[in-house]
Amino acid sequence: MSEIKKVVLAYSGGLDTSVIVRWLQDEYNAEVVTFTADLGQGEEVEPARAKAEALGVKEIYIEDLREEFVRDFVFPMFRANTIYEGEYLLGTSIARPLIAKRLVEIAQETGADAISHGATGKGNDQVRFELGAYALMPGVHVIAPWREWDLNSREKLMQYCEDHNIEVDFAKNKKKSPYSMDANLLHISYEGGILEDPWAEAEEDMWRWSVSPEQAPDEATYLELTYEKGDIVAINGEAMSPATVLEYLNKVGGANGVGRLDIVENRFVGMKSRGCYETPGGTIMLKAHRAIESITLDREAAHLKDELMPRYAKVIYNGFWWSEERKMMQQLIDYSQRNVNGEVRVKLYKGSVDVVGRRSADSLFDESIATFEDDAGSYDQKDAAGFIKLNALRMRIAASKGRDLLED
Amino acid sequence: MSEIKKVVLAYSGGLDTSVIVRWLQDEYNAEVVTFTADLGQGEEVEPARAKAEALGVKEIYIEDLREEFVRDFVFPMFRANTIYEGEYLLGTSIARPLIAKRLVEIAQETGADAISHGATGKGNDQVRFELGAYALMPGVHVIAPWREWDLNSREKLMQYCEDHNIEVDFAKNKKKSPYSMDANLLHISYEGGILEDPWAEAEEDMWRWSVSPEQAPDEATYLELTYEKGDIVAINGEAMSPATVLEYLNKVGGANGVGRLDIVENRFVGMKSRGCYETPGGTIMLKAHRAIESITLDREAAHLKDELMPRYAKVIYNGFWWSEERKMMQQLIDYSQRNVNGEVRVKLYKGSVDVVGRRSADSLFDESIATFEDDAGSYDQKDAAGFIKLNALRMRIAASKGRDLLED
Amino acid sequence: MSEIKKVVLAYSGGLDTSVIVRWLQDEYNAEVVTFTADLGQGEEVEPARAKAEALGVKEIYIEDLREEFVRDFVFPMFRANTIYEGEYLLGTSIARPLIAKRLVEIAQETGADAISHGATGKGNDQVRFELGAYALMPGVHVIAPWREWDLNSREKLMQYCEDHNIEVDFAKNKKKSPYSMDANLLHISYEGGILEDPWAEAEEDMWRWSVSPEQAPDEATYLELTYEKGDIVAINGEAMSPATVLEYLNKVGGANGVGRLDIVENRFVGMKSRGCYETPGGTIMLKAHRAIESITLDREAAHLKDELMPRYAKVIYNGFWWSEERKMMQQLIDYSQRNVNGEVRVKLYKGSVDVVGRRSADSLFDESIATFEDDAGSYDQKDAAGFIKLNALRMRIAASKGRDLLED
Amino acid sequence: MSEIKKVVLAYSGGLDTSVIVRWLQDEYNAEVVTFTADLGQGEEVEPARAKAEALGVKEIYIEDLREEFVRDFVFPMFRANTIYEGEYLLGTSIARPLIAKRLVEIAQETGADAISHGATGKGNDQVRFELGAYALMPGVHVIAPWREWDLNSREKLMQYCEDHNIEVDFAKNKKKSPYSMDANLLHISYEGGILEDPWAEAEEDMWRWSVSPEQAPDEATYLELTYEKGDIVAINGEAMSPATVLEYLNKVGGANGVGRLDIVENRFVGMKSRGCYETPGGTIMLKAHRAIESITLDREAAHLKDELMPRYAKVIYNGFWWSEERKMMQQLIDYSQRNVNGEVRVKLYKGSVDVVGRRSADSLFDESIATFEDDAGSYDQKDAAGFIKLNALRMRIAASKGRDLLED
Repeated sequence: MSEIKKVVLAYSGGLDTSVIVRWLQDEYNAEVVTFTADLGQGEEVEPARAKAEALGVKEIYIEDLREEFVRDFVFPMFRANTIYEGEYLLGTSIARPLIAKRLVEIAQETGADAISHGATGKGNDQVRFELGAYALMPGVHVIAPWREWDLNSREKLMQYCEDHNIEVDFAKNKKKSPYSMDANLLHISYEGGILEDPWAEAEEDMWRWSVSPEQAPDEATYLELTYEKGDIVAINGEAMSPATVLEYLNKVGGANGVGRLDIVENRFVGMKSRGCYETPGGTIMLKAHRAIESITLDREAAHLKDELMPRYAKVIYNGFWWSEERKMMQQLIDYSQRNVNGEVRVKLYKGSVDVVGRRSADSLFDESIATFEDDAGSYDQKDAAGFIKLNALRMRIAASKGRDLLED
Repeated sequence: MSEIKKVVLAYSGGLDTSVIVRWLQDEYNAEVVTFTADLGQGEEVEPARAKAEALGVKEIYIEDLREEFVRDFVFPMFRANTIYEGEYLLGTSIARPLIAKRLVEIAQETGADAISHGATGKGNDQVRFELGAYALMPGVHVIAPWREWDLNSREKLMQYCEDHNIEVDFAKNKKKSPYSMDANLLHISYEGGILEDPWAEAEEDMWRWSVSPEQAPDEATYLELTYEKGDIVAINGEAMSPATVLEYLNKVGGANGVGRLDIVENRFVGMKSRGCYETPGGTIMLKAHRAIESITLDREAAHLKDELMPRYAKVIYNGFWWSEERKMMQQLIDYSQRNVNGEVRVKLYKGSVDVVGRRSADSLFDESIATFEDDAGSYDQKDAAGFIKLNALRMRIAASKGRDLLED
Repeated sequence: MSEIKKVVLAYSGGLDTSVIVRWLQDEYNAEVVTFTADLGQGEEVEPARAKAEALGVKEIYIEDLREEFVRDFVFPMFRANTIYEGEYLLGTSIARPLIAKRLVEIAQETGADAISHGATGKGNDQVRFELGAYALMPGVHVIAPWREWDLNSREKLMQYCEDHNIEVDFAKNKKKSPYSMDANLLHISYEGGILEDPWAEAEEDMWRWSVSPEQAPDEATYLELTYEKGDIVAINGEAMSPATVLEYLNKVGGANGVGRLDIVENRFVGMKSRGCYETPGGTIMLKAHRAIESITLDREAAHLKDELMPRYAKVIYNGFWWSEERKMMQQLIDYSQRNVNGEVRVKLYKGSVDVVGRRSADSLFDESIATFEDDAGSYDQKDAAGFIKLNALRMRIAASKGRDLLED
Repeated sequence: MSEIKKVVLAYSGGLDTSVIVRWLQDEYNAEVVTFTADLGQGEEVEPARAKAEALGVKEIYIEDLREEFVRDFVFPMFRANTIYEGEYLLGTSIARPLIAKRLVEIAQETGADAISHGATGKGNDQVRFELGAYALMPGVHVIAPWREWDLNSREKLMQYCEDHNIEVDFAKNKKKSPYSMDANLLHISYEGGILEDPWAEAEEDMWRWSVSPEQAPDEATYLELTYEKGDIVAINGEAMSPATVLEYLNKVGGANGVGRLDIVENRFVGMKSRGCYETPGGTIMLKAHRAIESITLDREAAHLKDELMPRYAKVIYNGFWWSEERKMMQQLIDYSQRNVNGEVRVKLYKGSVDVVGRRSADSLFDESIATFEDDAGSYDQKDAAGFIKLNALRMRIAASKGRDLLED
């Protein structure tokens, strides 16, 4: 343990990571550099400075990464209509690679030889942090205190604080949620507590970002979203930066009860886990992106994306953002978006997001062909007979050679 | 044309297929056998008998296929969480193979050498009918009047009726919907009319099976669905047949504004098409099936299914139900469902379906491992370090050999 | 038929396409522009000029496309290790998009409104020519004489020549192969004749480009191939252009009996077909490319390519080279090749191609880790225990919950 | 370590596993049960009895598993045309699940609480053994001495033998191959030694199962293989059991120089590794199985298998034979084989395997349709025009709406 000289820690300013600061100082005899990022989690990050200073930290990084987060991570992921196991919008997963990247960049700037984080040994986040760190700084040493120490209960943590003179905000700590939570501009998540029983319904007061559908307005809200190359660049005609888009959609979505999710998911480490999520903006973006693609993407392009998507989602979920396979798929995905331009109109109402219109100068929808009315010869219906005959040929041959395609 | 002696026609009893009866009799000089099926479209099928008789049809088949439809087609498809292009639940697609099967079976029973249908030359249904027919009766002759005749407007059809003494129910015909519709137990669909402009919002009075979310009850409805081998066998504790399950869910779902969909989809024949759908029961089933699988399916089993699903959906959408590839995938899917048993609790509210609980005697959710509390040693967090190190190894080697995984 | 004013014909100078020139002139009363390309088929193309002139053709295009063919079509395809149905190297398929492209470009240059080709109505080539043409010139008219005329026997063709004063090289025609053949720099193919019986062994004198393994030298030939970004740029240290590379490998491969193939393949139009192929250079390239990738590609990158390859191959086989889905996959593939540099040593001997060495400055092979000898701590074997434990976790949970993974 | 009472060891009778017996007895103070299997590795297994007895082992299992190995593992795998990374026939991978199965079955029979094996901590085999063991006996304890002890050189091992009175066959040990080898009925593999340099050509005297192509007979050998449901059941008309089939093909293949392979592969644990393999019978089986499928499998069935194969291969390579995903894919694969019956004729010559004929009562090859001669109307060439037009439609629409499919 004596080899580690300096550690960059992903530091929230909360109790757990404050304990880690001291623990790293004591156990590793290492200098600690703290890194605190504003990813839109909805809490001030600046107070982390004083806390770090109180713990004797000399190099303190506090950064607003909201625009980079949405522009370089969230938006690229949404170009693929990404969804894990049919339900989960990857709100936690997509933030980890950015944090890992900054951790190792800061390690390189400050001459640190290790990074550390506060994720437990049972979850996905440890994997995502560490895969990112190893990919970008292969010789880095990773310290995951939760896998090493024996402070595996709140009581022991509190005792540690007392023994080591770590100031505890008892007021805040008392009203601590019974849930393990994570938040960033894309979502807030809840795990643990009564959620550990998958049959138990989540309590209404758990949810923080959205009103319940029952409490949402009785009048629907309509939005018009403008897309350029697969990304939203304006809402209701007003140009917005990536982070502003997501903040706006979170606000309007949450106010309409949009984006709650309650699932059991399969973690990379091999266990099933119950999680609840609020992803108001992301829920709107997924639906609307499919809609703009529906008129601007070629059919087989869309199907190819659909078939690759579960794999792309899994790669991100498992923490392989910086891997070659993710980047290869991103090339394919991004290329497909060069004509994904136009407007989508959505209706938000008491938890639902409905697409009610889509239009584009790059639309491939051809009314003159699709029409039930006279199409003035732009499509020859007789072509369909040959099309069907040859598509059927392999089955007709099989059947005519005695195979029973009904019973066999 | 003189070679065809007898034709089995998929006959709805409506104006269009009545014209086809006469047209086949005249143009092909063929005897026509009519086949009318109750697939739960919500209209009486028995009146088709008198209409067929009036047209001189001697062999009239009228059948209630609702249970077979749900048991052998809808349920198997839902085992795969099937959804086409991320949105469409394949309500029309899944009914066609059953109709095709009965058409050729009746052709074989009655000694007919041809089958006929009323689908247009621009759509998917012609393909689905005909691929099914060719697969199950490779020597069958298919007559698709819409691809052959020149009665390509309502006026010409009416004129044809007048010229050929076909009785027209003018009252019914006048209040005819401006939309092209299709219905069965799984859904009702709308195309054409103002929907041909993808930017135009569907009118409220178009929808027939569901109330609008705004008109739905202010109180949520909860349902408990019981699964056996991936299929729902009981609702709120009451055992039900497959068709009864779907009828029940349609009723409750529709009353809660559940299941409306408005999309632009890619047809097999190569064009994009706007369609609106109401699939109340199917919308509930998709969500609930994913939930029961979430606790009973192995992770990689679920992911394999997810990766194959778009392909399975496409095969069905394109009309290849009776193909070898569909049957091969069905083997894989059905096998995966042998432990998909248990209960799912869903909440329906103003258009939303939310899963609020799931449980199973076959659950793979292990609270003792997943818990944030002390797990009494059932999971060794230190294992995670080695797991991550070896998962990272290929990236660490690449980076240590000079590849820049950030910029490259 | 009178609407067509000018047609660009893919013209080989042979009997069949000469008949087509006259037939187009007569039946369509159209001016014919001929296009003859040297794709490395091994026959002079210049003689086609006199023949076209004799038929009254005024606009005659004769072009050497060998470099473009290999650089822009063959090489990109080989970056994907492309192989159709586990065996076929797509020698015919990959030439068609280039011909289609030139046909429509010439049509645009000459103001022609149609293109024509000599492919039959049963094969894949008609599809490939026409899909290419429609994609690049959507309003083009395609004339496929073999689908229209009734000259469906050699006798009728000869009679047509006599009736229309088309000069026939009887000497050449007499020694005409009993096989339908196609050739370009990548391969030569044989169909028809006794090959129509899949049990019959191909006759030795059918093969044209390679000696039989039995006749090949008793001494092996070694080659050293240099790769840059996935393409061969030098052989035995000598830099070569793409077409030169392939010519060289064809010569050496053919001399060593390399590259014969005898298969039954599935055509896009729905039937099975027996074909024999000689692809000496391609066979070497496929094997060697996998070898250079084996040390320079990341594992998951390689696996992703492998899983996409059958689909990519099918897209090309079916004629969708100019489609969005092919281009999307090409982005992914090409991106993966940026470090595929180095040398491969292959041994050719009596029909076999064996890789005997591979090296690269961009190698990811790490002897210090892979060694069976002491690795000086670069890999901690204890990591494997945790890696295995967590990979096993989902199965251990399933088994501990009573599932029998042996019998179930 | 004191908790382990009895360990079942995969025991070869060689030096390494003999040391492990003693080490387990000493370090774990555990009773050791040995299990030695004849999988066709070509060495007597019975001598292992005396060696185990000399080490004080009381429960000794020696079993001939050759038929089970080929019938239940090798043949099912070959139904999928399985090949890892385009080259490797998985000869080692496929034997591990059977050994794991017997280890845990013997553990259950003998009341052992642990299993042990002699695989190193860098390779794939440890993973395959242990994943199998954990899947079939979730509470089993696994002891992998190579990950635990410090006997990481031959000298230390010899010293251990001397210190612990383990008899060493010095004669045999002296002529020990410089390669790490593994053998069973499917293949023999070589790693280590000079192979650790991927540029170095393997020495001729390394290879044990096959003559070099240069030394193979100057006359080709022809074989006729009879398939039933995808498996070979007879050779040259003589019915044979699964193991006999493979033994026969190994003998004839090896005598003709067939089946050598030299690759760099990607291990599951994250590193690249050079391996050489001899798989004479398997090489013939892969080629021949594709041939019998080429006439009996539906096109889309074959393509679906091809697209799933890399994943199926990876699952086996990585050791997940007993997983749900492997079994699901096996269902799909086995179902597809129900008509894969018939004969394949292959020619073996100096390292090459060529298919020269295939026939089947279940053939889908239809000469009357495929013929270049007059087909008497069984295929209407005009159908192709409509087929192509509709396949082109999406591209024609895109192009007509201004997209440049050439340059874009």
